[in-house]
Amino acid sequence: MPRLKVTIVGSGNWGSAIAKIIGNNVASSDDFDPTVTMYVYEEIVEGKKLTEIINEQHVNVKYLPGILLPPNVYAEPDLVKACEKADILVFVVPHQFIHRICSSIKGKIKPSAVGISLIKGFVQAENRGIQLISALIKDMLQIEVSVLMGANIASEVAKEQFCETTIGCKDSFTGSILKKLMQSENFRVTVVDDIDTVEICGALKNIVACAAGFADGLGLGDNTKAAIIRLGLMEMIQFVDQFYSGANLATFFESCGIADLITTCYGGRNRRCSELYVKLKKPLKEIEEEYLNGQKLQGPLAAEEVMFMLEDKRVVDKFPLFSAVHEVFLGKMPPEKMLEVLRNHPVHK
Amino acid sequence: MPRLKVTIVGSGNWGSAIAKIIGNNVASSDDFDPTVTMYVYEEIVEGKKLTEIINEQHVNVKYLPGILLPPNVYAEPDLVKACEKADILVFVVPHQFIHRICSSIKGKIKPSAVGISLIKGFVQAENRGIQLISALIKDMLQIEVSVLMGANIASEVAKEQFCETTIGCKDSFTGSILKKLMQSENFRVTVVDDIDTVEICGALKNIVACAAGFADGLGLGDNTKAAIIRLGLMEMIQFVDQFYSGANLATFFESCGIADLITTCYGGRNRRCSELYVKLKKPLKEIEEEYLNGQKLQGPLAAEEVMFMLEDKRVVDKFPLFSAVHEVFLGKMPPEKMLEVLRNHPVHK
Repeated sequence: MPRLKVTIVGSGNWGSAIAKIIGNNVASSDDFDPTVTMYVYEEIVEGKKLTEIINEQHVNVKYLPGILLPPNVYAEPDLVKACEKADILVFVVPHQFIHRICSSIKGKIKPSAVGISLIKGFVQAENRGIQLISALIKDMLQIEVSVLMGANIASEVAKEQFCETTIGCKDSFTGSILKKLMQSENFRVTVVDDIDTVEICGALKNIVACAAGFADGLGLGDNTKAAIIRLGLMEMIQFVDQFYSGANLATFFESCGIADLITTCYGGRNRRCSELYVKLKKPLKEIEEEYLNGQKLQGPLAAEEVMFMLEDKRVVDKFPLFSAVHEVFLGKMPPEKMLEVLRNHPVHK
Repeated sequence: MPRLKVTIVGSGNWGSAIAKIIGNNVASSDDFDPTVTMYVYEEIVEGKKLTEIINEQHVNVKYLPGILLPPNVYAEPDLVKACEKADILVFVVPHQFIHRICSSIKGKIKPSAVGISLIKGFVQAENRGIQLISALIKDMLQIEVSVLMGANIASEVAKEQFCETTIGCKDSFTGSILKKLMQSENFRVTVVDDIDTVEICGALKNIVACAAGFADGLGLGDNTKAAIIRLGLMEMIQFVDQFYSGANLATFFESCGIADLITTCYGGRNRRCSELYVKLKKPLKEIEEEYLNGQKLQGPLAAEEVMFMLEDKRVVDKFPLFSAVHEVFLGKMPPEKMLEVLRNHPVHK
């Protein structure tokens, strides 16, 4: 069998961390071509091209400073050139860029290639709904796309701190190849075939983290916070059931499910900014400017996108916590009213 | 229908907090006798009998100071007198006393009475195994016994902070009565029929919390801690499957499952003392003396009890995290070695 060529599309914090694992894995396996191509959006850093720095110093000084990448990770600034010969395409770019990336490589990749998306969040579909990012890639490139999600803070993965992750993949042979590519001693992979659930968990958890942040901002107790996380999980399960039926309940017990949810609700920027939103009583935009350099917080965006779908199907009543997060950020509901939402939650009826 | 008489057996922190809810509920319902009897182990507090203080001032000054109990909660120091006319017996005493309590009231209660146990932890059975506390009560008193478990820190419940709880009850009519008795605006009850799972979660969570505490003591990252909690939950599920088959996976999503586990792994004395055990490198006994007034930490005890069962069935290999907690407390395994246990966990095979 010919060795599989792997390309990583993206070179941010998470892309570079995963490049470290993939680079090491392909170097020690007969299944893969020993060089990994990493598409890097070219930038000039202190007068030098970022790709040159990576290829000479083996450090992504801009997005993952201080971490040595394996020398077989080759930075390539030309997107088409990076992708055209790949058998496995690992997508790990900010979600607002994925559409443009797919447009650029459409028809220029191997038809037999497979993709795996590490991108969290939804994209907005034309019909007032949401589309999963794996589905968008699949539609645009006409290739099979798997996903990888889990409790994986990039900086911890880069430092080789132990964590688990979940790959969602329909085909078991592809799943076993992807596991070989991704698993390391400190990055343990479980493969499940329930792709939609794996991916949706990654997007919805941020809504729940906002509710958890409100609880922290309001100074509610540990039990109340645990109840919010649990009720949020119940709505995640309900959401998958409503819009992507056929989910396996066990998938929510994987790293992509409860583990990622817990980490996000106790750490993470969505929790933190939501806490500040309640405490400081400032508009969200100001908090985003002050604490995220003007980047958009994902939870409020996800809540807005989800609301389109819930309203469209007239099932808002079944998702009172998701709705509350949306209303609080719109300024239509005082955060304190969230307690009433909890008290009247349909799961206790 | 005659009104049901309710007796609370126990008057500690948790017993007094639940007495507040039950007292209020029976006062506003036609289903129950308007007076709730609370069995109180008589003590002299500042020269006065504790039962007299409770009946006159309506405060359990020793175990739940500062919280006003409803006036219809009547403290009774005579155990048999407290129980003999009860239709519903709510057991909420420290688990080392339950055997003695049952011996004292055996044959002296209504044969038609039902019990509900709020007691967490196992009791050791004669045959080197463990027995669920509900099963012990059932065996000794020959009555049906339900359980109530959840993310319910007594002080938060007493202050009417919102939380959820889970009742495990085989019979749906009894379940509906118990829900009426226990549920309040800020204490939301879900009833499931999977009693064993509800009760076992309450005992095993402390073992997982010890592992989470080791992670904190070792300064491991957020992802590692989330992985430990998840792997711990996997072993809890596996344990129920091995010894009490017929569990419903959905029960682990209830408050008694993930919610209680999360709270215990982020707050709670088991987590805290295990962190100190690793950081201070002192014997557990010294930590118990210094931080728990000599009380025994529950997690190490539960781990020891569980190990008997695992060894007896020769399934220790399937529970490497539970075993590691036991070995670390015995001083047979350095806490750092827990990482190896995670790396080689059978769920990733």
